[in-house]
Formats: sequence, C-alpha cells, structure tokens
Amino acid sequence: MDLRSVIREIPDFPEKGIGFKDITTLIKDKEAFKYAVDLIVQDLKDKDIDYIVGPEARGFLMGAAVAYALGVGFVPIRKKGKLPAEVVRKEYSLEYGTDILEIHKDAIEKGSNVAIVDDLMATGGTVCAVAELLEEIGANVKAMEFLIELSFLKPNEKVKKYHVNSLVKYESE
Amino acid sequence: MDLRSVIREIPDFPEKGIGFKDITTLIKDKEAFKYAVDLIVQDLKDKDIDYIVGPEARGFLMGAAVAYALGVGFVPIRKKGKLPAEVVRKEYSLEYGTDILEIHKDAIEKGSNVAIVDDLMATGGTVCAVAELLEEIGANVKAMEFLIELSFLKPNEKVKKYHVNSLVKYESE
Repeated sequence: MDLRSVIREIPDFPEKGIGFKDITTLIKDKEAFKYAVDLIVQDLKDKDIDYIVGPEARGFLMGAAVAYALGVGFVPIRKKGKLPAEVVRKEYSLEYGTDILEIHKDAIEKGSNVAIVDDLMATGGTVCAVAELLEEIGANVKAMEFLIELSFLKPNEKVKKYHVNSLVKYESE
Repeated sequence: MDLRSVIREIPDFPEKGIGFKDITTLIKDKEAFKYAVDLIVQDLKDKDIDYIVGPEARGFLMGAAVAYALGVGFVPIRKKGKLPAEVVRKEYSLEYGTDILEIHKDAIEKGSNVAIVDDLMATGGTVCAVAELLEEIGANVKAMEFLIELSFLKPNEKVKKYHVNSLVKYESE
C-alpha cells in the first residue's frame, strides 16, 4: 500500500509557504491506518518493548494504536501543566522560541525498554527532547517510529544514535 | 478486572477541591489498557460502526486504540486552529467560559455510523458538542463510549437520547 497517497498536502498551513502533511486522511482510512500501525509493530516486535511513548497530541493517535497492537502500555508526553502528578520537564528549542514537554516522574520503571511513536519527524527537536526526558527517568530508548520523516530538513545529528524507522520519507519540499 | 483500581486519584488538580481521575496509570498498564479497549470494542461490534471519533487530546488515547481493534478509521475532533483543512466549528459552554471544537468538513461521508470515544464524561458538555458537530456533517451517532463517567455530576439530559457506555462510574465525589 502506498501510504503517501493517503497523506494530504495542505498549502500554507500553519503559515504561508509551509506545505503541511495532513495525516487525518490516513488515520481515517481503515486499511491505511491498520497497515501503518502494523508496519510499526512489525519493526518493534523483536525489541522487547515495555512501553510505547508518544507526545501530545498527534503522537497519541499512532502511539496508542501501536501500544494496543503490540500488547504493551502507552505513556503520554504532554505540554506544560497537563499531567496531574509529579513530572519531569524538558525545555527545548523550536524554530522560533521554545516549548516545554513533561512526563510523569513515575511513568516508567527504571530499565524499561521504550519506543517513541509520533506522526512526523521534522528537524528531530521534539523527539530528541522526548528521548532525553525518557533517559532522565531511567528508560532505554530502543526505537523512534514515525509515519512521516521530512528528510529534506536534515534531522538532528543526535537522532543518529537511535534506531529510527519512518514509514514515508519526503526527500524534497 | 477492576479498572477502578488502576485509575489514580489526584487531589486538587487542576484546581483546589477537585479530585482528578488520572487515567495515565490505566493506559500504561498493558492488561488494563487492553481490557478497557476490548470492552468498548465488544459494546460496538454489532453497531456497524464506520468511524471512531475522539476529541483532543485524551480522547485520542482510547479512541485510536479502539479504532484499530475494531478495524475502522479514526477521526479527530480538535481545538480551534489545529486542523489544517476546512472545518466545521462548534462553540460550547464550559463551567467557566466557552471552548471551540472543530472537525474537518470532509472527515466523514454523509450517512456514516460513528461512535464517540473519550476518557471521561463529566457534565456531558463536550460530548454533546461533538455529537452536534457530527450530526451537522451528516454522521449518525450510534454510541458514546467512556472510560469514566462522573455520574454524581448528573450528565446533560441531551446525552439520554444516545447509547452511552461508561466502563467505570463514580456515584459520589
């Protein structure tokens, strides 16, 4: 199945000049959604994964389905102030300004194997911040899984030390 | 399995006097997560559901897993400005002030059967707004599924015309 054909391109969103990759058309297509989830599960199934971790909000969509299909639990990473119990926090740089991500301090037992699942990797800034948070609470980041990789943006060097699996790669804008 | 035992109570969140039901402890527990998803799937499987619909962000967690397990697509409802294509919008009342929810105008073919999945029903204001949005774009709301229902808050009368299934009901605060 050609997943690229069910990803919709939206011009000038969220701002002029940016072509947004809309995955809602993939997720609502039952065959494409199942196919994408199963490809990620296939890549993870020999990695002894204890938890799937996904950042708010689109990371929850693929992440929760992958966790269910793999038979493991799901741990959310959220924006500042959304998680109710004690958190560990990471501030990280965006193209303009900074953002803050949080994880529950007790979310994952030390030494657990985790895979990060998100819809899209652009520069890799978010996933690196997520990986640092996870390592800070003692988890082993065994894999990073994406529906989409914007390869033309040359993802962060730091990502190279991890196993990265991206289902659809865009080599040019 | 007693799902109540894996829901964590957080006192005074998000504000003083409110006991927050934290579902992250349920979702990260692989047995509880699978059990909860499967109970919802069981309730939906004879309803000829075409799409699962879930509101941002916690609705994505159960909703996407239920969609996968049921073999259907997932359609997100998001806060204002998050969806990239043309939307239909609904403003609705919260305890203090109002909020806006949006769905892609072309998300669901007219006449499709949908089930709304969310983590928690309090007064029912959100799920009623979601149902109205869905009906506005021509979908049939066949069911509303929740992990948790705060029954002591006496959910909105409007909810009564729908099939509602809540896995855990709190009869008192």
